[in-house]
Amino acid sequence: MTFAIHGLAVSRGIAIGRAVVVASSRMEVVHYFIRPDQVEAEIARARDARNAVIDELRRLQEEMPKDAPGELDALLDVHLMLLQDQALAEAIRNWISERLYNAEWALTTQLEIISRQFDEMDDEYLRERKADLEQVVERILRHMKGAASPISPPMAPAEGGPQLALEGASETPLVLVAQDLSPADMLQFKSKVFAGFVTAVGGKTSHTAIVARSMDIPAVVGARAASQLIRQDDWLIIDGNEGVVIVDPTPIILAEYSFRQRQNELERERLARLRFTPSLTMDGQKVELLANIEQPSDGAAAVRAGAVGVGLFRSEFLFMGRSGNLPGEEEQYRAYREALNGMQGMPVTIRTLDVGADKPLDKAQPKDYYLNPALGLRAIRWSLADTAMFRTQLRAILRAAAHGQVKLLFPMLAHRSEIEQTLAQLRQAQSELDARGVAYGQVKLGAMIEIPAAALMVRTFLRYFDFLSIGTNDLIQYTLAIDRADETVAHLYDPMHPAVLRLVAEVIAAANEAGKEISVCGEMAGDVSMTRLLLGLGLRSFSMHPAQILAIKQEILRADASKLEPWAREVINSDNPAELLAH
Amino acid sequence: MTFAIHGLAVSRGIAIGRAVVVASSRMEVVHYFIRPDQVEAEIARARDARNAVIDELRRLQEEMPKDAPGELDALLDVHLMLLQDQALAEAIRNWISERLYNAEWALTTQLEIISRQFDEMDDEYLRERKADLEQVVERILRHMKGAASPISPPMAPAEGGPQLALEGASETPLVLVAQDLSPADMLQFKSKVFAGFVTAVGGKTSHTAIVARSMDIPAVVGARAASQLIRQDDWLIIDGNEGVVIVDPTPIILAEYSFRQRQNELERERLARLRFTPSLTMDGQKVELLANIEQPSDGAAAVRAGAVGVGLFRSEFLFMGRSGNLPGEEEQYRAYREALNGMQGMPVTIRTLDVGADKPLDKAQPKDYYLNPALGLRAIRWSLADTAMFRTQLRAILRAAAHGQVKLLFPMLAHRSEIEQTLAQLRQAQSELDARGVAYGQVKLGAMIEIPAAALMVRTFLRYFDFLSIGTNDLIQYTLAIDRADETVAHLYDPMHPAVLRLVAEVIAAANEAGKEISVCGEMAGDVSMTRLLLGLGLRSFSMHPAQILAIKQEILRADASKLEPWAREVINSDNPAELLAH
Repeated sequence: MTFAIHGLAVSRGIAIGRAVVVASSRMEVVHYFIRPDQVEAEIARARDARNAVIDELRRLQEEMPKDAPGELDALLDVHLMLLQDQALAEAIRNWISERLYNAEWALTTQLEIISRQFDEMDDEYLRERKADLEQVVERILRHMKGAASPISPPMAPAEGGPQLALEGASETPLVLVAQDLSPADMLQFKSKVFAGFVTAVGGKTSHTAIVARSMDIPAVVGARAASQLIRQDDWLIIDGNEGVVIVDPTPIILAEYSFRQRQNELERERLARLRFTPSLTMDGQKVELLANIEQPSDGAAAVRAGAVGVGLFRSEFLFMGRSGNLPGEEEQYRAYREALNGMQGMPVTIRTLDVGADKPLDKAQPKDYYLNPALGLRAIRWSLADTAMFRTQLRAILRAAAHGQVKLLFPMLAHRSEIEQTLAQLRQAQSELDARGVAYGQVKLGAMIEIPAAALMVRTFLRYFDFLSIGTNDLIQYTLAIDRADETVAHLYDPMHPAVLRLVAEVIAAANEAGKEISVCGEMAGDVSMTRLLLGLGLRSFSMHPAQILAIKQEILRADASKLEPWAREVINSDNPAELLAH
Repeated sequence: MTFAIHGLAVSRGIAIGRAVVVASSRMEVVHYFIRPDQVEAEIARARDARNAVIDELRRLQEEMPKDAPGELDALLDVHLMLLQDQALAEAIRNWISERLYNAEWALTTQLEIISRQFDEMDDEYLRERKADLEQVVERILRHMKGAASPISPPMAPAEGGPQLALEGASETPLVLVAQDLSPADMLQFKSKVFAGFVTAVGGKTSHTAIVARSMDIPAVVGARAASQLIRQDDWLIIDGNEGVVIVDPTPIILAEYSFRQRQNELERERLARLRFTPSLTMDGQKVELLANIEQPSDGAAAVRAGAVGVGLFRSEFLFMGRSGNLPGEEEQYRAYREALNGMQGMPVTIRTLDVGADKPLDKAQPKDYYLNPALGLRAIRWSLADTAMFRTQLRAILRAAAHGQVKLLFPMLAHRSEIEQTLAQLRQAQSELDARGVAYGQVKLGAMIEIPAAALMVRTFLRYFDFLSIGTNDLIQYTLAIDRADETVAHLYDPMHPAVLRLVAEVIAAANEAGKEISVCGEMAGDVSMTRLLLGLGLRSFSMHPAQILAIKQEILRADASKLEPWAREVINSDNPAELLAH
């Protein structure tokens, strides 16, 4: 039966393929495909982990403290029964041998299936008993995490491998469906194993969305219940332009979308011709088009798209999915240098760690630890609370700056005291390098303007920094008090809200007046419907992900900046800017 | 051994007394003291609930579906063992008979003690097994909630009752120590059973803090680990001015604080003489002092303190702690009318429901359901998402307005579309009353300015509304992107941040220019260190809780508004307003 699930369109394009459903689990686990010749070893790995847990529980029983409640022993007996359940073991073997899932994926997939059986029970109390099963499975998963794996998870699966491995579907594109995807999974899936992504949670700027865009793969997030409604192997169409997932489409619908898919391809080829065209408005104003990147290797795509530099290198992706052991100075230095090399001498803006909020570093932190993570210890606040880690990053960036043009960008500053603490840390990092006699380069200093307070005190920022970069996503979020990832209020997240536009306009004007560089690196910079307005407000530097650069360049080539100025003023002073922008 | 725990000073004054520690539990339970003659009945209630749960589990075992996993039966056996544990039953009996705790309190207290034993176990897995015990206890608690209680929890405990009941401590004041206090508990404890409050979590504007202030009882919140470090019956000094809790003080410290306590008392008596003094500045400017109230009956304290009206009646307290069944139109109407009567003809500003964020209506909602509740579906967003509930409230307010001066205040508006939807709902509520032929009164319409977007588009608000009220707490929170209840960033929550002051100044100026009423009802209005600045910015209406009114009046009587104007401009334009404010 054909049906559609509506979500948020976060990465453009159309994908057609069969569903691979990833079960959600409380523990973060890796998901990857194994090769057919690894099946036996992987089954053994699952079995060994289970046996090890059985041994552990037996040992616990033997060593139980004398004063422990007697019920504890009985509880462990039940858990041992669960562990030795033959049906469970067999199902896990099947997921590994039939689907080539890694052992962890097989375990969580089976757990999800049993969980649904529990969920259907009438009595709440019986339903809750699934917790025992979850704990047993998690114990096995934890054991696997600790144990050295005979098959190390590939940083990127072999090209084409998994597709070929799935029986009878050698040429069929696969589409990933999940409740949510961890940054680690997204990295794992980066090399285009999948033709599209669907997640049940997430917003326009969730990490799934950002990574999908950087991979230029169609994605729909916030497709509620998608992971429940879609079954393994369902045919799916992902319409990343409209935010719709069509499940089990009829042949007519399928033909229609295949046609659109080809049209998109043609449009891309047309835009590709602009690659070497200089980015100038009709009246000859030069506009700088920069790339947002997430990995050192992303520079290649940026250069291909005609970017003249990196406006935002999100350094946090180096820090994520490492379960605690942060990258050292040397590792970071090499990564930053690689990014610089990739940009072939063009400037690279490196933003210091922006973790917290929806980007927790350590998944072990309980999800409800912070009541409002977006209003909590994140970005520069986090860095200033862990200055050893912060200076490690600063030293690595300073050292990389010896090899090219580095612009250093600090996120989430909102207080003069924070600015001064940040600059003091930078001076200290320089002294530390001096003391060690290590070479480092000069950097330009910049601040993100992404908190209303920062926008409102922009003149103070301009006294301290060489350049500013407006992070429109967070600026909108805080100005409107709307969590962009919360589906119940996502419709109120409005880049064209007059208050947002007023702040953006004021920051651009103040920076231009002070003769300082000003750029926009939030979603707004890559949104063609905002290009003319931003030009009219005096913006001459846009940073966005590489896939958007050519479409924005096309807008710029068609624009007459001098004529846009009075119109932009009118928009800013309007009660209803969206109306004026539509014309 | 004497030691001190530092937290946030949220309600001024000094309390000295013995600790009553309330165990935290995942389920919200009521806490109250029973009378000695109720002990037997209460023990029976606990026992009956336990027996009922035993019967339920046995029935579940018998009726187990055939396809249910065999382990389920074994698990239920273990839980039955836990339920029948004699040591558990005896401990609960003791808490009831020795401490006069109600049965729920006794259960959670004992659960906490056993939990700590589990927490001390070496193996994480064994530690996790406490979940089974928790589930069993919760099942009993849930049963109690459902069952009709022979002893209905008193809405307020008999005056003096519990103190007398505690053996050998008939005259000793008691101080409540908890991980967190639910709004329901705070209401329960409102009639001054306790001389002070200490909670481990919470911020300056958490509900514990707000209620403690409205009760005028010293309180310290965010005193990390207080509920772990403090034991039952420890002597405590709560210094609500400095945010310090001193545990087991020496006689010298005790004498020092008793002296300060008496001094505070004298200062209060001195201020009390200003009660009937008109609120005028030295240069004859009239300033309106209004009260923030939370319950209809709070009006009495407002009148006593010399308030000339209610600037903020937080209607949400009518809706809380009711486990789902919301108050109907009639009940609300009576409550609003009572508030009007209590104010003896003076105007009462009723704010429509402000739930969500740290004020969830339904505690059953999992705490991590919303990633950032402060940026989610709350206040007017919630009301516009449940228009039937919203119009019920609007009709009740409109009907009450037939009996006095009502000002209707809408929280959290930030979009023109929301304003229009809100006003449409109001018109519909009026039509509904017209259709029923029910009498209602005229109301003035107002909006809270508490989201940066609202402050930035204040001119639009002034076109729609008769009056505005600045909610400084939320305005600061969003402008600075700081959750005031998050201890890791609470130090960055700064009412004197230049961006905050700029927004407050702009809103006051715009409203005065438009000739519309403007008031401040956030904490800033009751903070004596901000009074002169707000006067200088042109504010002539302050709303605060009754206990602060006389201290603010004293500031006003000493101020020369005309001289403050140029100084206020200087402060607003300064990089470091806090410095200028200190002089």
